[in-house]
Amino acid sequence: MKTKNAYPSRNEGQGALLERTDPVVYCDGESATGPLSREQLDQYERDGFLLCEDVLGADEIAAFRTEAEALLERDKADAGSGEVHTLHDAASISQAFFLLSRNDQIVSIVKQILDDDVYVYQSKVNRRPGFSPAARIWRSDFETWHVEDGMPHMRAMACIIALTDSDVFNGALALAPGSHKRFVSCGEDGPDPQCLRALIDENGLAAPKAKAGSALLLDCNLLYGFTANMSPTANENVRFVYNSVSNRLVAPFSGEAPRGDHLANREAAPITPIEVVKSYATMPLE
Amino acid sequence: MKTKNAYPSRNEGQGALLERTDPVVYCDGESATGPLSREQLDQYERDGFLLCEDVLGADEIAAFRTEAEALLERDKADAGSGEVHTLHDAASISQAFFLLSRNDQIVSIVKQILDDDVYVYQSKVNRRPGFSPAARIWRSDFETWHVEDGMPHMRAMACIIALTDSDVFNGALALAPGSHKRFVSCGEDGPDPQCLRALIDENGLAAPKAKAGSALLLDCNLLYGFTANMSPTANENVRFVYNSVSNRLVAPFSGEAPRGDHLANREAAPITPIEVVKSYATMPLE
Repeated sequence: MKTKNAYPSRNEGQGALLERTDPVVYCDGESATGPLSREQLDQYERDGFLLCEDVLGADEIAAFRTEAEALLERDKADAGSGEVHTLHDAASISQAFFLLSRNDQIVSIVKQILDDDVYVYQSKVNRRPGFSPAARIWRSDFETWHVEDGMPHMRAMACIIALTDSDVFNGALALAPGSHKRFVSCGEDGPDPQCLRALIDENGLAAPKAKAGSALLLDCNLLYGFTANMSPTANENVRFVYNSVSNRLVAPFSGEAPRGDHLANREAAPITPIEVVKSYATMPLE
Repeated sequence: MKTKNAYPSRNEGQGALLERTDPVVYCDGESATGPLSREQLDQYERDGFLLCEDVLGADEIAAFRTEAEALLERDKADAGSGEVHTLHDAASISQAFFLLSRNDQIVSIVKQILDDDVYVYQSKVNRRPGFSPAARIWRSDFETWHVEDGMPHMRAMACIIALTDSDVFNGALALAPGSHKRFVSCGEDGPDPQCLRALIDENGLAAPKAKAGSALLLDCNLLYGFTANMSPTANENVRFVYNSVSNRLVAPFSGEAPRGDHLANREAAPITPIEVVKSYATMPLE
């Protein structure tokens, strides 16, 4: 049976703004218990993102940076000079990032928002070197995941854990608050500038200043980009995407073959949160 | 007689940091009277820049935007899509910008800082379209003017008048406060990243939020760049560079022929400030 395409894109001419028909925060009333307060849930619902500070301590940040840099150093698909270097599928390659992706605090927050069991759909380590002036502008990940991977609904979210301090001068994420409430149906050349303008004009732009060890939660349909890294130092983070097990992938709506599992995990086995009883700083690294 | 080269650059191997041997603020004690307070002068001395708000009123901003856009529209050397469009020598081409370059408030400030008669060395209108993600990183204009135009000393400054609101999301200037106190002698490939890092690490980065109608004063040797314009709307400004008449150009220190007068005015006749008795909004436009 063919799944109904709730968010058509890239299939006919010009882009358009469509209403989002899925919730942003899935829990309500009784099911809203969890680490986030009602106020935090409301903020995430309204803006499409929420910054949680101090998810990792100083020792843990140092350990994960060491691990991230070792993995990137060994990565065969090394990026060009000045380019963002992304290591895909980090939670499969590295025991340390596997454990972090199951961090009980993070997974509890994600399950609270999505009100369901979840699995790790993507896991990436990103390193943006200093003095790399290419910014990147506006995309909704959900549009890609829907069209290219067959994610049927907006019941997924990203958690970006900063391994370095991040601000608007060194490649922080730039966000269009509230833009997650509409779906930017794209033409062949990506999102239509007039659609982007309409969404950005509503609430302006934001770039949360994230200290190392903080976690930025992003709705899957939020428009985001990267600021340039004009600073001398690299910006590093690890990014997990969690998808609801009730939102498992179907055939891509593009009609083409799905991307590889290292880019979009098609196995929707729910993960078990792992309680962090000892510091991550003591865990075995790769 | 050959002028001594106080700031050698691009003539041998690696870059280096040299001490600035010229003052930043030339007036002192008795000669410090003028529009800027002692506190403002100290701030300019320390940071290498100063933002002056409300130099133009709303009617004037509108008139200069109309003029700027008409000039850019007619400009034969139109930029590519997504590129910054710069019209050189705007004060020679346009009566309106000629008058603005002589604005008595601006010229009084410039003469106070440089403590001398001045002339207009450059005048440009810049338009950075929306959704242009290429940022530009660190340069000192003085390095170029010294090597390519033969400006012997650091006794010049830029005044950038915002014609649109400008912030870190739409192409505002990014500045390295305090970096004007050293000279980054460049190798063949531009400034050495380790020199830039040393200067930026001292005081971090800044991007003053400039409302339309404000004027940003910049020391000629301050390291600056542009943030990306991630916003939907264009960023427009007009930029005048004033040089002290005592600092007239000599033969370029590169040993090559000087650039054209439309890029670097070699006629050092002092300008006369023009008091603005009527609003610029009533002036004849091109």
